[in-house]
Amino acid sequence: MKVNRVNRVLKAMEEKGIPQLIVSDPVAIFYLTGKWILPGERLLALYLNTNGKHKLVINRLFPQEKDLGVDLIWYDDMQDGVQILSQFVEKDKPIGIDKVWPSRFLIRLQELSAGSKFVNGSPLIDYVRMIKDAEEQELMRKSSKINDEVMEKLLPWAAKGLSENQLNDKARELYAQAGCEGVSFDPITAYAKGAADPHHVTDDARGKYGDCVILDIGGRKDNYASDMTRTVFLGKVSERQKEIYNIVLEAQLRGIKAAKPGSRMCDVDLAARGYIEQKGYGDQFPCRTGHTIGLEDHEFGDVSSVNTDIIKPGQCFSVEPGIYLPEEEIGVRIEDLVLITENGCEVLNRFTKEIIVLPFEG
Amino acid sequence: MKVNRVNRVLKAMEEKGIPQLIVSDPVAIFYLTGKWILPGERLLALYLNTNGKHKLVINRLFPQEKDLGVDLIWYDDMQDGVQILSQFVEKDKPIGIDKVWPSRFLIRLQELSAGSKFVNGSPLIDYVRMIKDAEEQELMRKSSKINDEVMEKLLPWAAKGLSENQLNDKARELYAQAGCEGVSFDPITAYAKGAADPHHVTDDARGKYGDCVILDIGGRKDNYASDMTRTVFLGKVSERQKEIYNIVLEAQLRGIKAAKPGSRMCDVDLAARGYIEQKGYGDQFPCRTGHTIGLEDHEFGDVSSVNTDIIKPGQCFSVEPGIYLPEEEIGVRIEDLVLITENGCEVLNRFTKEIIVLPFEG
Repeated sequence: MKVNRVNRVLKAMEEKGIPQLIVSDPVAIFYLTGKWILPGERLLALYLNTNGKHKLVINRLFPQEKDLGVDLIWYDDMQDGVQILSQFVEKDKPIGIDKVWPSRFLIRLQELSAGSKFVNGSPLIDYVRMIKDAEEQELMRKSSKINDEVMEKLLPWAAKGLSENQLNDKARELYAQAGCEGVSFDPITAYAKGAADPHHVTDDARGKYGDCVILDIGGRKDNYASDMTRTVFLGKVSERQKEIYNIVLEAQLRGIKAAKPGSRMCDVDLAARGYIEQKGYGDQFPCRTGHTIGLEDHEFGDVSSVNTDIIKPGQCFSVEPGIYLPEEEIGVRIEDLVLITENGCEVLNRFTKEIIVLPFEG
Repeated sequence: MKVNRVNRVLKAMEEKGIPQLIVSDPVAIFYLTGKWILPGERLLALYLNTNGKHKLVINRLFPQEKDLGVDLIWYDDMQDGVQILSQFVEKDKPIGIDKVWPSRFLIRLQELSAGSKFVNGSPLIDYVRMIKDAEEQELMRKSSKINDEVMEKLLPWAAKGLSENQLNDKARELYAQAGCEGVSFDPITAYAKGAADPHHVTDDARGKYGDCVILDIGGRKDNYASDMTRTVFLGKVSERQKEIYNIVLEAQLRGIKAAKPGSRMCDVDLAARGYIEQKGYGDQFPCRTGHTIGLEDHEFGDVSSVNTDIIKPGQCFSVEPGIYLPEEEIGVRIEDLVLITENGCEVLNRFTKEIIVLPFEG
């Protein structure tokens, strides 16, 4: 068990008056134990209790070689795992339930009256995960450093006339070569018309002279995700494209400037969005400004106009405003990850945001 | 809506005294509506009621062009979708809940007291899906016919000295060429040592002269899955390999013979397992004999020693006994899909089960 992380969760449980908690999401279990266990559809439940009597209920199909620092309670496919779990539950006290726990398990737990009240317990962990500890901060830096390097290697390929799907494959290949476990999400490699649609699905379109190209990419290194977007131009950049690019860049810089302890998440959104609105493109930015990131590319909490949570040191999120003009086939998005410090933020991506025009070879 | 299928579910609901049901699994929703909707982590709920007042609660991010034959109830990300769903629930009556519905939704529904009792409602659909209707039977035949063809094309590649991973890639390529949407599951392409381990994970091992090779493969065509296993030999087959092969083949044929209406699923298991035990290899067959299949490669219900469900016409499942001898690096599994008819079963795979020795080119 990662004792400091577990203790932070236990403290939150005490504050909220929820003395026991069932964690089933493999990502949350990895966060708390340092071990990936992927049980598929089988029951896997880390039971935490503020009295310190934690248990991990686990199927015999997943033998553990290392001591995880928590009592392992084994069951097999012929047994009722939830009934075994229920023996450890304090039936007269409220219990927090993992938001993703399949209903068949919760219904069975309720049949067994294992808990006086059932509440969504995931925020107890999500708010702890939101604040990256020193080890995680270092891993986030490392992952984004690799992302800067992959972006540099990918850019020339954007100008070779590849299809979006081919460019997507190339991005995956570069992350593998860089020692990543994989990509953080399906890479977005969108030309012109595709770039102008924020919900575009990668297809077989090819880049043309004069196109803008959105490259929104990230890899997973030592379990931590990176995520960065750059928009570049093929062969030439028009005055109109430059105008839009510079508005998005200024909005992004304003968003980053607002990312500091004591501000609210919505203040970051407002700083970026406000500038884009002021320039007359509010309707062409129909997305939130960013999302939190860590073990997953999208974690709990976003940078949106309705999130009034106060920003704290250790948070990590994206700042990624954009302007999308389908009729002109222009789309520009610029994204960096920021890590909140005591006074402001550290921008994890160092890759240039100056306008790049690639020599077109397509 | 697929009216006949919905009516079969409604009939089961009436019989079980569960007048209302929430379906959230996209596969089940496809089965009942004919439409794939993949909402990610967002709420998607098909609410069925025996009074006929069905609703589909769906996020505005997933606009529907075609009339699905059910009232669509829209919500957006700023709204509480479960609260909107709860307005249609009869609060004083029991309600069936999809087994995979994330707990956060069920907990919210319970906070709203939307239902007098919450039960796992998935068996109501799973037992209906188990009996393939005429349209599905034709699709299962078509999918398995393609599987026969892919097996024929894949076999020569097994003898070219490719790694397991390369052979796995080749299988995927052949399904794509055959017009499949993808594979039904990660293809198993295991040589010798890997073949002798029923839980082996495909790796970079290469085939050698004299190896047995297990090819356990399936594709997805028009949404329906195929699944077949053949074991072949590289360059030569030893007397010992032949002996094991023939035991597995006889066990498989006995299993198929037992697959008929009125028998129990466990009878099929016993027919195959009994023969293997009789030959002295019971401990070397540590798996169930088969699994049901359809829209998913593994559906509800298996061919195991503990499943006493009576077999009915329209069911489709695999018969796949095996013998695994890690110390001798021999593994043999033979698998076909069967479709239960009025009197027995139709074997969906036609690919030969005679011993195949491939000319080894590795």
